[in-house]
Amino acid sequence: MRAVDLIHKKRNGGELDSAELSYIIEGYCNGDVPDYQMSAFAMAVFFRGMTARETAEMTLAMARSGDQIDLSPISGVKADKHSTGGVGDKTTLIIGPLVASCGVPVAKMSGRGLGHTGGTIDKLESIAGFQTELTREQFFAQVNEIGLAVIGQTGNITPADKKLYALRDVTATVESIPLIASSVMSKKIAAGADAIVLDVKTGSGAFMKSVDDAEALAKAMVEIGTEVGRQTSALISDMDQPLGYAIGNALEVREALDTLRGHGPADLTDLCIALSSHMVLHGGQAGSLEEAEVLLRDRLASGAALAKFREFVAAQGGDPNVVDKPELMPQAAAVIDVLAPADGFVQKIDAEELGLAAMLLGAGRATKEAAIDHAVGVVLKRKVGERVQAGEPIAVLHVKQDEQAATEVAQRVQQAYTIGAEAPVVSPLLLSVVTAEGVKRYV
Amino acid sequence: MRAVDLIHKKRNGGELDSAELSYIIEGYCNGDVPDYQMSAFAMAVFFRGMTARETAEMTLAMARSGDQIDLSPISGVKADKHSTGGVGDKTTLIIGPLVASCGVPVAKMSGRGLGHTGGTIDKLESIAGFQTELTREQFFAQVNEIGLAVIGQTGNITPADKKLYALRDVTATVESIPLIASSVMSKKIAAGADAIVLDVKTGSGAFMKSVDDAEALAKAMVEIGTEVGRQTSALISDMDQPLGYAIGNALEVREALDTLRGHGPADLTDLCIALSSHMVLHGGQAGSLEEAEVLLRDRLASGAALAKFREFVAAQGGDPNVVDKPELMPQAAAVIDVLAPADGFVQKIDAEELGLAAMLLGAGRATKEAAIDHAVGVVLKRKVGERVQAGEPIAVLHVKQDEQAATEVAQRVQQAYTIGAEAPVVSPLLLSVVTAEGVKRYV
Repeated sequence: MRAVDLIHKKRNGGELDSAELSYIIEGYCNGDVPDYQMSAFAMAVFFRGMTARETAEMTLAMARSGDQIDLSPISGVKADKHSTGGVGDKTTLIIGPLVASCGVPVAKMSGRGLGHTGGTIDKLESIAGFQTELTREQFFAQVNEIGLAVIGQTGNITPADKKLYALRDVTATVESIPLIASSVMSKKIAAGADAIVLDVKTGSGAFMKSVDDAEALAKAMVEIGTEVGRQTSALISDMDQPLGYAIGNALEVREALDTLRGHGPADLTDLCIALSSHMVLHGGQAGSLEEAEVLLRDRLASGAALAKFREFVAAQGGDPNVVDKPELMPQAAAVIDVLAPADGFVQKIDAEELGLAAMLLGAGRATKEAAIDHAVGVVLKRKVGERVQAGEPIAVLHVKQDEQAATEVAQRVQQAYTIGAEAPVVSPLLLSVVTAEGVKRYV
Repeated sequence: MRAVDLIHKKRNGGELDSAELSYIIEGYCNGDVPDYQMSAFAMAVFFRGMTARETAEMTLAMARSGDQIDLSPISGVKADKHSTGGVGDKTTLIIGPLVASCGVPVAKMSGRGLGHTGGTIDKLESIAGFQTELTREQFFAQVNEIGLAVIGQTGNITPADKKLYALRDVTATVESIPLIASSVMSKKIAAGADAIVLDVKTGSGAFMKSVDDAEALAKAMVEIGTEVGRQTSALISDMDQPLGYAIGNALEVREALDTLRGHGPADLTDLCIALSSHMVLHGGQAGSLEEAEVLLRDRLASGAALAKFREFVAAQGGDPNVVDKPELMPQAAAVIDVLAPADGFVQKIDAEELGLAAMLLGAGRATKEAAIDHAVGVVLKRKVGERVQAGEPIAVLHVKQDEQAATEVAQRVQQAYTIGAEAPVVSPLLLSVVTAEGVKRYV
């Protein structure tokens, strides 16, 4: 087999078989297929696409490229969740304890933040003492005992994906549905969960600009999961503004705690309930999505979800008092109000700009090696559709000190808001759901 | 400027400007643009194409990547010719002296053979003493004196093309009209001729399978030449069988001599006259193609073209007696007849197979470093459309000795012929001509 022939076949619209896809992925990992052939292949896939079978087989080849976690020492149907990323996305902090409080085990590996997006591991480390490095045995034991553990990525998970993703990033081959779908799903499959719920964002600030594109990606991912025997659902949600109000590590933990108390922002609460209900359904703890939602809302109202979070923090060495006293987490030295420049309605908020603003304040990393400050970030005061008056605060910066750099960030945050005279049409958060049974649009 | 943004622009169907194309080509040469970005770019060009302006600007950037020959020390309109390659193509040996004998200077750089195709330099070296390495001053002086010189490629001509061609070969990005056109034309432009005549082959054995594809390539090349101020024409000819009868170095020189005497095969003679007439027209030695053809046929009939070949051989140190006594060139130790396996008509002849057969006998190189035997090769006895009887010779192998390997080659040559009961429709050699004025189909 020669890589050039396989590139040629795909370029001409042919369908590659399992052995051919394995050859490319394995060859790319071991160096037999050089970067320059892989990038030409990726570009051919960008133009020609892949069938569901090809995408599933490439995904499996990528999952096989490194460690595959066997979660069988954990009893029950293990559920996992993945988000295609977003500014202010603290859903894992909420969904983990919420789903676990319904009896569905969650054994989750999470990442750190880079660039304008944050990472769950960084957020959890806002809590003093919280350990994200557990041995495999500790990880399994904790999930068996309390139903929940969240650790940093360990071992050598999908090296093929890591290498290919870095290559796609510099060869303009990122925006390809089979390549995105196989990247996400190879990691989820290697991570070992039985049920996978995907949070796919759409909108001008997201990767998938239209609901149609987002549905196509969601379908590709659900098809892969179904093909390899994992219960998979995908929810498509609007991402034209940050989720909730808080952006920044301790600030987001605090908002997650509010939400687990049942007092969180509506958009964040609704998305968490929606994603969780699929996990609970797949986990066999409810007979329908409606039944799952009733159960989940009860777990928030009863305090069971919050209690699970406290148990989880304690199990991983963190200070459980944080749950009741969030002020125990690092707090910023100063706050700066960002003021509305005009009267009107918030038309849109550029989430990526806000993510970059938080990064510049120290909440995120510009490079992998950079240190972060858990205390700092941005808290929105107004979101899309709300009326504002010139001079009133639309957001608050939590900063190290009242410094010059923060003033520049404040201007950046101000400019991330578009304010206009007319009340905008606010689209609903949940747009569509894709399962093995098909696509259901909410709107 | 970042290469990834330029790949992205082309991938999305955008048109790159001159600075952007220069950045890519220069960056590729100096290592700023790595192979993996160039291959993704090439694949994007494969799918999206390039405008005439983009193709011309990329061609110029490639021509600028190395030495550009300034032929101005040579007086007159210097004409050059390029063939997209073919088995048994000895046209340069004929056209050079033929055009020079009409008063149009030909200052030509030629290559060596590789794989199933031969090279003009190898063919000329069949003549004892022939030197293909001249200094730049010797080269110019010889053309000024006798109107003709043919040398091996010297200096560092279009390194960007060499590097890109090698990359395209292993990334399934060879068959792209803008990439082929810029590759050919960058070399011709760097080689410095004022007028360029292109011999574009079509047919099942050629790169461009259909006349439409060949015309599209021809138009792209003529547009580039015209854009950069070189008079350019392209002739599209059928390449479903070898040109003439001889394949192999000394054997081809012999056939070229026959043709210069006016006794060559009709297809070879006609193609040489057609290509030469454009060179003579561009060179200002005739007022029309018809007038050029009359002049050229006179030069064959009068012996002037043959005399020019003799002068050319002597000027480059070769033995001019070869012209009258071709048997002075190396001759094979033995000949082996290849017999027709059945009665019927020759339906087709696989030219590439015959090229490979000649290579296996020693006439060509499997690798760049291999030595070649000037004496050996294949001489066809029957071509497409001719009637054959079972057991009569259809071709003759000229071999080192009557060895076992030659017997296998004989079988290969036999199988390269398709013989059937019905007389096939023989398509004419010349199909179309493309000039700055437009396309004219002959058929």
